[in-house]
Parts: sequence; structure tokens; C-alpha cells
Amino acid sequence: MRYRGFGLWAAILLGLLQLPVAHAGEGMWPLSNLPVATLKQRFGFSPSAQWIEHVQLASVRLAEGCSGSFVSPHGLVLSNHHCAVECLEGLSRPGHNLMASDFYAATRNEELKCPAMEVEQIVQQRNVTAAVNHATRGKTGAAYAAALRAVTSRLESACVGSDAHRWRCQVVPLYHGGQDWLYKYRRYQDVRLVFVPSQATSFFGGYPDNFNYPRYDFDLSVLRVYVHGKPADTPDYFRIAAHGPRAGELVFTSGNPGATERDDTIAQLETLRYPVFPKLLQYLGHQQGLLEAYSAESRHNADIASGTLFFMDNAIKSIDGQLAALNDARPFARKVKAEAALRAKVAANASLKRRYGGAWSAIAAAERRGRSLFLPYWFIVRHAGFNAHLFNIAFSIVLGAHERTLPEGERISSYRAANLPQLEQELFSPAPVHPHYDALMLSSSLTMMRNLLGSDAPISVALFAHASPQQRAEQAVFGTKLASIAVRKALWSGGEQAVVASHDPMIVLAREMLPFYLKFHKTYEDEVTAPVEANTAKIARLRFALYGTSIYPDATFTERVSYGVVKGWVRDGKLVPPFTTIGGLYRHARSYAPLQLSPRWLAARHTLDPKTPMNFVSSNDIVGGNSGSPVIDRQGRLVGLIFDGNPPSLGGAFWYDGEKNRAVSVDSAAILAALKHVYHADALVQELTTGH
Amino acid sequence: MRYRGFGLWAAILLGLLQLPVAHAGEGMWPLSNLPVATLKQRFGFSPSAQWIEHVQLASVRLAEGCSGSFVSPHGLVLSNHHCAVECLEGLSRPGHNLMASDFYAATRNEELKCPAMEVEQIVQQRNVTAAVNHATRGKTGAAYAAALRAVTSRLESACVGSDAHRWRCQVVPLYHGGQDWLYKYRRYQDVRLVFVPSQATSFFGGYPDNFNYPRYDFDLSVLRVYVHGKPADTPDYFRIAAHGPRAGELVFTSGNPGATERDDTIAQLETLRYPVFPKLLQYLGHQQGLLEAYSAESRHNADIASGTLFFMDNAIKSIDGQLAALNDARPFARKVKAEAALRAKVAANASLKRRYGGAWSAIAAAERRGRSLFLPYWFIVRHAGFNAHLFNIAFSIVLGAHERTLPEGERISSYRAANLPQLEQELFSPAPVHPHYDALMLSSSLTMMRNLLGSDAPISVALFAHASPQQRAEQAVFGTKLASIAVRKALWSGGEQAVVASHDPMIVLAREMLPFYLKFHKTYEDEVTAPVEANTAKIARLRFALYGTSIYPDATFTERVSYGVVKGWVRDGKLVPPFTTIGGLYRHARSYAPLQLSPRWLAARHTLDPKTPMNFVSSNDIVGGNSGSPVIDRQGRLVGLIFDGNPPSLGGAFWYDGEKNRAVSVDSAAILAALKHVYHADALVQELTTGH
Repeated sequence: MRYRGFGLWAAILLGLLQLPVAHAGEGMWPLSNLPVATLKQRFGFSPSAQWIEHVQLASVRLAEGCSGSFVSPHGLVLSNHHCAVECLEGLSRPGHNLMASDFYAATRNEELKCPAMEVEQIVQQRNVTAAVNHATRGKTGAAYAAALRAVTSRLESACVGSDAHRWRCQVVPLYHGGQDWLYKYRRYQDVRLVFVPSQATSFFGGYPDNFNYPRYDFDLSVLRVYVHGKPADTPDYFRIAAHGPRAGELVFTSGNPGATERDDTIAQLETLRYPVFPKLLQYLGHQQGLLEAYSAESRHNADIASGTLFFMDNAIKSIDGQLAALNDARPFARKVKAEAALRAKVAANASLKRRYGGAWSAIAAAERRGRSLFLPYWFIVRHAGFNAHLFNIAFSIVLGAHERTLPEGERISSYRAANLPQLEQELFSPAPVHPHYDALMLSSSLTMMRNLLGSDAPISVALFAHASPQQRAEQAVFGTKLASIAVRKALWSGGEQAVVASHDPMIVLAREMLPFYLKFHKTYEDEVTAPVEANTAKIARLRFALYGTSIYPDATFTERVSYGVVKGWVRDGKLVPPFTTIGGLYRHARSYAPLQLSPRWLAARHTLDPKTPMNFVSSNDIVGGNSGSPVIDRQGRLVGLIFDGNPPSLGGAFWYDGEKNRAVSVDSAAILAALKHVYHADALVQELTTGH
Repeated sequence: MRYRGFGLWAAILLGLLQLPVAHAGEGMWPLSNLPVATLKQRFGFSPSAQWIEHVQLASVRLAEGCSGSFVSPHGLVLSNHHCAVECLEGLSRPGHNLMASDFYAATRNEELKCPAMEVEQIVQQRNVTAAVNHATRGKTGAAYAAALRAVTSRLESACVGSDAHRWRCQVVPLYHGGQDWLYKYRRYQDVRLVFVPSQATSFFGGYPDNFNYPRYDFDLSVLRVYVHGKPADTPDYFRIAAHGPRAGELVFTSGNPGATERDDTIAQLETLRYPVFPKLLQYLGHQQGLLEAYSAESRHNADIASGTLFFMDNAIKSIDGQLAALNDARPFARKVKAEAALRAKVAANASLKRRYGGAWSAIAAAERRGRSLFLPYWFIVRHAGFNAHLFNIAFSIVLGAHERTLPEGERISSYRAANLPQLEQELFSPAPVHPHYDALMLSSSLTMMRNLLGSDAPISVALFAHASPQQRAEQAVFGTKLASIAVRKALWSGGEQAVVASHDPMIVLAREMLPFYLKFHKTYEDEVTAPVEANTAKIARLRFALYGTSIYPDATFTERVSYGVVKGWVRDGKLVPPFTTIGGLYRHARSYAPLQLSPRWLAARHTLDPKTPMNFVSSNDIVGGNSGSPVIDRQGRLVGLIFDGNPPSLGGAFWYDGEKNRAVSVDSAAILAALKHVYHADALVQELTTGH
């Protein structure tokens, strides 16, 4: 399972990271800039303007961090099961758990509206580089930022017009600001559930098989977008192919890769290699063990911890793969060589040297500072030392009270006026509070912070003068009234005065922590993030100046097409074949989770052709955000559904290695066969195959 | 707290690890080869033959992995509290926990005999290189090993003579076989407890302060060795100095550093840097979290887990520091440069090239193999996937039954005849069994093994064909009869036949695991350990051929002297002063563990001079095994007691960095002041200061 979006962990990675090497086969290309010459030369394929427009309009993104596509003219959307989890959790009721069971609406009346889901279709792309450059020319610092904010806001507002429910517009900087594009999306906010298998089937193989291959997963969800209570008209859609791709066939993915860090310098990668990733793995391993033992205590505990544990497992596997990539000597040496070559090119040219020469050492200096700040940044600013739901509530109130006393432009972004509604929605959410769970988590995370920063660290001296981390955690969790939404609302609306007057022990803890948060937030921003971003953008502009659009921009969670070939790879000297089969699924199954087949699959065994391809791998260059992307052939037919990458593909954050990186998809033949023989979803199969 | 010995973790590190760079100040020198020229030149100090002999005879080692010294003519031994833990645990009874309280025997009658403890004094050292070389000359492979075993055995037997209870003799290869020495030890097996503070005082500051500085620990134990029921005569002893050392003063440590890996090649260090240490930290972090949550459930659980958790904490901190050292660019680059220089020297000389040229690439190839085998080796051979007491019992029975069918020379070493008594002692130990704890540990470790090796790994297919890791763990733990020592004895004496016939589910699990253990044990031995050891020895012999005894040999848990100067170091641009004071101890204290002072220390506050030095750091080169080493001045007076190292000193396994590596000691002034004013141990103070 790939990262679906920009949650805490993605943010950590993004917050800390950032030269691409032109490899034949790699790239996440904007539709405005497909590598047509390469495609023609290598594959004899020239995509027409119609082909490109069709791909654009048939592709969608799911606002919370996934991709998908229209698969019928009546608003039917195909994505992954793991992209619909929020919807499934939101629709579940006691005794009717949509994660544990499959769901199929045989008629439109039975389709269930997802509580909060948005599907977006990109309908227009406009290069606004000139307008942005004109507005910001000659400006620096705060004046530059203000001018950029103003021009972006003006362009986006004019694009949206009067119907903000129907349209979303976004100015997206490509090539770290080398180009600016205005993307216009058609928004669909009435999204209904048509079909999902159970999670046991979609995530078959579980943790050991996650980010791995061979695989046998049926990781899909079928949704339908509605407009004014009727299925939307979606004339541009991908028709599903009765047979998936052949080995060696050219295939494309169309989707929204979330973020790549391929313009990172070696100094930045070294920071990730140590200390960031090893320390994260140690921290996450600790949390995983803690939650495992907590879950083993009772079914009730297991239910409380399962979402977080699932997320920890995925994060550990992802970071593990990224750390393995950064320790893979060959691609790393290539990256070192490429950086040295670019720096030599700059050093040899007086004008380039003047403009760009200092960028690498400025980044290296900021990275050294970042490494020394990593632990306090991680524990305090990233809240790893305060890892509990009730603390997060208290801290939003305390930080919110402080930030709202500041002028808009000086606030931390989530506390700016435009973002307050979302923040308030989270703050006043009736999501349940689990005090014993929170006490364990807060006690463990405060203790680990104290252990790793030291008893003499200023924050330890301040917070633990009279009580141990465990004592403070228990006093705060068992003494707080923040389980009450009314109490939260009173503190929130009371602002700084109410916060200062509060004796609520969780508010007091958050209030004592605040000055450390503000200090390290500012220090890290000023001394690490700002110089790294400014100089990364400088290197990206250098590359754009040298190579223009012959290279692809880092991913920005916007529509990109990648091309690739269906093929396996060599692992430990042995070829991993590109396809698995339905027969293989049955052979891989066991009597226990996560290898247990559902009764439907067990019953259907003899009606399915065991030779039907189940999953396949291809050399398409994808990353997190591509989950749910359609895999299409030259004819624009949907032949597969992206849901994961192989282990080396986790290095895709930093580089693309065509020999090893593979995307993992559900084969279209398996989709049709299972819908028909396992789920008897005849109407759905008919709509997918005939459009009606 | 340093590693005290050669347990599982030390074995892992040794099993996987090995050019020293001659730094002024570094070195763990055998008494036969002190760096007298350097000492004279730099410090104007020439140790006399009497000085050296006195140091030898006044120093002792504790058989389980520590060092110590005689501190009175009547057998009084000074070591660390953490070196006496087994004794303290063995002497504790319900309601009388010697870890939680202090102990002082005001009279000899009150001294308590430690159940199993041995103190060894080195009385003779003889260079037997010629004899060993003569016996093995011209032999290779198995013939070489047999000849080496025979000559070693002959030399040791002749040395011991008829009184094996009184003497222990050991042939020790220095310089990885460049020299062989026969060391003769006087054994003292009647060791009695005279004084210990509580663990809260000896390990004051706990986890966050461990391997850290400033420190305020009173980590000492006072023991006495007896002969024929009377205190031993020990005319060679160190007189404790009323005042500890001055800043800048030359001081010596005398002790038994356990193992260093300074002859390791870069390829070996790279293996530790990744994957070994990051994966160990992730695994240990997981175990730590698991035990933390388990302990939080109840006091009963906390008691069961505390020993293991304490050990995990120490292991994590130690590996964390070693990983930090390996990621410290400057010393690593120095090591890379030194290796390149040595290889260039070899390449430039046809004779050297022929004999030694291939060593580095042979090691690099073995290391690559080792990296690819790391996970199965760790989970299967090192039992990380089978981490439960009851499984260990079952596996010793199953492996023991198999090994005892083999000729002596082909057995795994712990199953050779000479080692069976120790193994049987452990196997038939009445140590309590905790089934729920074992079920959690076994379930967690089997699951992690399956998760990281994969569901398709042969061992997963074999062990988990019909039951999940958790199911197998629970079936085995709750179904086994191995809690009964009689059942263990019957299976052990029944040998392979009894094992094959057994339906005990833990024996069945161990039996199914055995072929994988044997396979990976052999593969790892043959393809990793053997070529690495053979080629490491080759490089060591090259260095010995080039430099002779002008360099010091890697540590071998035998008597070594290091010299150093009392001084602080610069951390993050700030000087860490060399001394802490008793006043600092009181200021560092809090109302909760691990910063809580005992009532005795609280009561004594106003009788103690707050300016008295408590702990100090010095540049002496030490590693694990040096715990309890005396720090002595030029006059041979005991001015301090080694108990730990600062964080950079954890890199001491790989190199010595004189700018940063520091040993941490208890100041002799603090020892005397606390014994007098806190513990009112007047008779002990008198014996320490007057010898009577």
C-alpha cells in the first residue's frame, strides 16, 4: 500500500527532503509535455492530441491523496480499496463493518453516499509563468511572498468564478518555480459507493506482502459521482479491456504522484540516511511494539489501536524501503556523480557560478544544522514526544489562541483565517476519546522524548521539574475535561485569556510546551527549511535553465503520465516474473489472516480460470498519490489498476532505477473475472464492458 | 553502563565485526608492552618494573565480564555495582531486595557469599608464540585447527597442573594470532559482598543519563575474596587516594577490555552501518515498546519484564552510539584513508601483494553475502524470531540431541563435552517460567520474522502452513510441559529418539525450526564468518609484520593498561567540564525515578561538601569489560573507578578519537565521602584508607 496523501508522515518526509538523472524510461510527465520523441523512437507510438485530451478527461484525483479514472459514461470511478477507507469507515455501523465485508450495490438506489469524499477532474491547464513572473519581478523576501500570494489568489479566483462548489483552481509551480501552471478542476462532491471487496481481499497478504511482489491483491473500489442527484455524464472514460497487458507491452499510467525529492542534493539524502530514517525506524518500531502489546490485552484495545497500528506498519515498511534505497551503493554513486558533474559545469562558467555556485554548500550547511536539530524538532515540533489525541486537542487550542493574536501573514499556515474552518472541524469532532490508550501513548512518548533529549534538556527541566513523564501524562489525561466538545468550544472561543486562566492539566501541559514549540519551529524554519528550499529552488532553476522541459518536474500531486513496459526484474540473481495468477492466489492462501480467503473466493474457486492473470508489474515510474491510477494501453483501454510498488520502487522518492523499480497493478482480466464469478456483480460488469 | 560481557548482543557484534591508526594517547596496552617511550616523552613518566608488577597483581577480572582491583591487603575488591548484579539478584529474597536497597557488612561475619561469582588475578604471562608456531607450522584447514587445539590444550594443562580450582590458564592470541601468550590466573571462587549502594544510587539518572555525561553515579560495589574461609592475603593492592585526580593529570586504567574491532575493514564497518545497526535498532525498539506496554499492565508484569527491559534499554543506547560513530564523517574518512594507504603499500610490493593483496576484496565479498543473509541469520540462527524462554529450553534439547549424535570435533561449540555441564546447568535451572509473557514474546517475534522474511520464505511456509505465528506461539507455550524440569531431563537424557517421539508442541516447533537453523548456521559460517576471520587475521598479521608491537592488539578480555588525561571535551561547540560535584548531584535530583535520591543521601546533604568531585572524565581508551577498572595515578594510588564512557566513546569499538572519547569514573574523594557520611561505613573507610 502506498502513502495516499499528505498526512503526518508524508509531511515529515516532505519537510526534510529535496538532481534528476535522465534515464530512458523514467519520468512523471505533465500532459503538456509528454516525451513524444522518445515514445516514437523507442516504441513507434505517437500519442495524438485526442489521445492526450481523452486521458486527461478520463483521469481523476481523489482529494485526500489518491488517483482514479472514469470507467463508464455514467460517472463510474475506479480506484483502490485503500483509497476509499475513510468512506468505508464513515459508512460503517456497529454490526455492519464495511472494512470487514464486501459491498455491492446491484442497483443505483443501493449506492451509498460517502460522508466526505471529493473527486476532481482536470479540465483545463494554462501556463501562467509570464503572469506570475511579471507580478513578482524584482521583489525579494516578504514583498516577493506577498506579491506571489496576490497573483496566485487573483488567478485562482478569476478561474473559479462564481461557482466554487463546481470548480477548483490551483496555481502549481513546476520545476520548483521554473514554470507556473493554472490547473482547473471540475469538483464532484457527491460520491457514492458502488462496490468494494473486503479489506482482507484487497490487502490480501497483509504486512509481509505489503510493498512486495509476487502479490495477489484485489485492491479496488468502484465509486460513482453524482450531479444534482443523478449520475454525472462522463463521456470521457476508459473502457476496461477484457484481457490485461501482454509481457513486454508498452503501458501508461495516468495519475497524481504526490511528491518526489529527485532534486535533492547529496547532503539532503545523507541527512535522511542518518539520522532521520534510522531514528524514525527506531521510534516507529517502539510504537509498533507498544501498540502490539496493548492490542494483545483485549479485543477492545485491539479495536482502538488497529487504525494507528495499520498506519505504523505501512510507514515502517515504506521508510525501511527508502533507507534500503539510500544504502544501495550503485544508484547512490550515480547520484553523487551527477551532482559532481553539474557542480563542475557551474564552476566552469563565471555567470552560472555567480548565480548558482553557492547553492550546494548552503544546503549542506543547513543540513548539518538540521541534523543537530533533528531530535528536538521531531519530538517537539512534530509532536512525537506528545503523541496522544487529547494532547493534540489541547495544543490546537493553545497554539490557536496564540496564533490568532498575530496578524494573518505571521501565523503558522493552519491557523490562517482560510484554514480555520478545517481546523475547527477537527477540533470539535465527536471522534471518541480513549483515556487509557491516550495515557499509555502520552506516557510512552513523553518518556522517550525525555530519554533521548536528556533529563537536562530545557524542555525536560521545565516539564518534569516535579513529576515524571508518566506522572504528567496520567495527571493530564485523567484530569482533563477536553473529552467534552463544549469545553473545547469554550476554550477556543475564549482565546488567549481563557487558555491562560485554565487549570485543565492538559491545557497546562500544552501551555508549558508552547514556548519550546515556537522556538524550535522558528529555528528550524529559519536555519534549515528556508535555506534548503531557497537553494533547492535555485538548483532546480539552474537545471531548468540548462535543460528546459526536456526533463520532467518533481511530482506535485497533479496529473502526470508515466510510460513503461510490463516486465519483471532480477532479485538476488533470480527473475521475478511479471504476472501472478488467480491460481497462485489460491496456492498462497492459508487458514489464517492475512492469508485467509473470504468465503466468496473459496466458493468461486472452480468457476475461475486459474491461469487468469491476477497482478502484474511494469516499469512505470510512480510514487505515493498514484494509488488508484489506471494503467492504459496505446488504444486508451484500461488494462490494469495501480495499487503498489515493489520494494526497490520505494527509492522512487530519490531516483528511478529502470532495472528494478516496478509498479504493481491489478490485471483487468482479474477485475472482470472476479466481479463476475466471485461477486456476481453482473450489472457492474455490464456497465464496465458495454458502457450501459 | 557498559556491556559487561559476552552475552547475546556482544556475541552478535563480535560475530559480525574488525586498522588501527596510531593516535597519540590511544591504546589498550598489554603489561608486557607498555608504550614506555611515549609516556616518558609526553609525560616524563617511566614506569618501573615494580610499578608494572604491582599494577598487574593488584588488578583483577570478574569472570562474567568485568574488571576490578584489590583495595586492601585483606582481599577487598572494588568494582562496579552493575558488575555485581547477578550476585545481588541471587542473594535477594522476597521482602529483601538487594537491588532496591543498600547493603553494608560492618563486620566480616555479616559479609554475604555471592552464589556464583569468580574473581581472577593474573599472576603470570608467558610468550608462547614459538611453541604455537612450531606445533602448527605448515598445516592448514582441519589439520591446523586440530594442531592448534592440541598445543593450546597441552600448554594450558601443564600450566594449571593439578589444582584447577586454584589456577586458570589461557592461551590468548594477540594481534589476531601475530603473538600467542599464556596467561595464568589465580582463581577466587569464594567472593562475598561487603558493600553496595542501591541501584537507584549506582544508576542514578537511569536511561537518559546512561552512556552520557555530566553524570552523578555512585556505581560501585565492594567485595572480598576468601580462601579457606578466611579473607585472602592480597599484599598487592591499590591504596585509595583521599583526593581524586586534578584536571590535566596523567592517569591510568588497568582492566580487561572485552573486544574491539579496530582491525575491521571498511566493508565490515559498512555492513554494521547498514543493514545491521538500523535493523537491530528497529527490532530492539519494537521489543522495548512491547515490554513497556506489557509492564504498564500490572506490577506483576513489570517485575517479569524489568530485567529484559533494562538490558534492551542498554543495548539500544549502545548501538545508537555506535551507529552515530559510524556516521561521523571525519573519523570514518580517516579510517578509509588509512585502509587505502595500507592497501597501496601492499600493492606496491610484490611479496606483500602475493601474501596479503586479496584480503580486502575477500572480506568485501563475504560482507556482501553477509548482508544478504542478515535477516535469516538474525531471526533464525540468532533466535530473534524465537525470542522466548520456553522455546530456548526446547531448542537446546532438540539441537543438543542432534549435536550429541555427532563426533566431538563436528559439534557446535556449546554442545562439546567440555561445555555440556554449563549447558545442563542452564537447561535444568529452576528459574521461573512465565507463560503469558512467553506467549506474547514468542508471538511477537515469530510474527516479525514472518513479516520481514515474507510469507513465502521457506521457514514461513514450513512453520505456518496451518497456523499463524500467533496461533503457533500460543499452542506451543500453553501446550508445552517444559516448565517441568523432570520433563526436560527426560527429553535431554532420551536424546534424539525422545525428541523425535515427542508430541510436546514446543519441541515440535523447535524440531521444525532445526533444519533451517542448521542450514543458515552452516551457510553463514562457511560463507561469511570463516572468510572474514581468515582474511582479518591475514591483515592483522600484515600489520604485525609491518609494525610489530609498536601498535597495540585488539582487545581480548585480558589485562591491558590505558593512559589518559583528566579533561573534558567539546560538544556542539561547548566545553563539557571534566568534573561533576556532589552539589551537582543534589541539583540534578528530582522527586521521581530515575532522579530520586535515597533517604540516606537526602539526610546526608548537609554533612557533605558540595564541592567534592563526584564523577570525572578522562581520555583513557576503554571499552566494555573495563567496567570496574581502577583509575590510578603515577604513584599507583586509586583515584577513580571506571563505570561508563561518554557518547562518542561508543565508537571506541572501531577507533579512538582523542578529541572526544572519554571514560567516566567515580572520583575517589566521592567514594570516601559517601562511605563515611552517607553510609557511615566507618570500618570499610578505615580499611580502605589504612589497610586495616
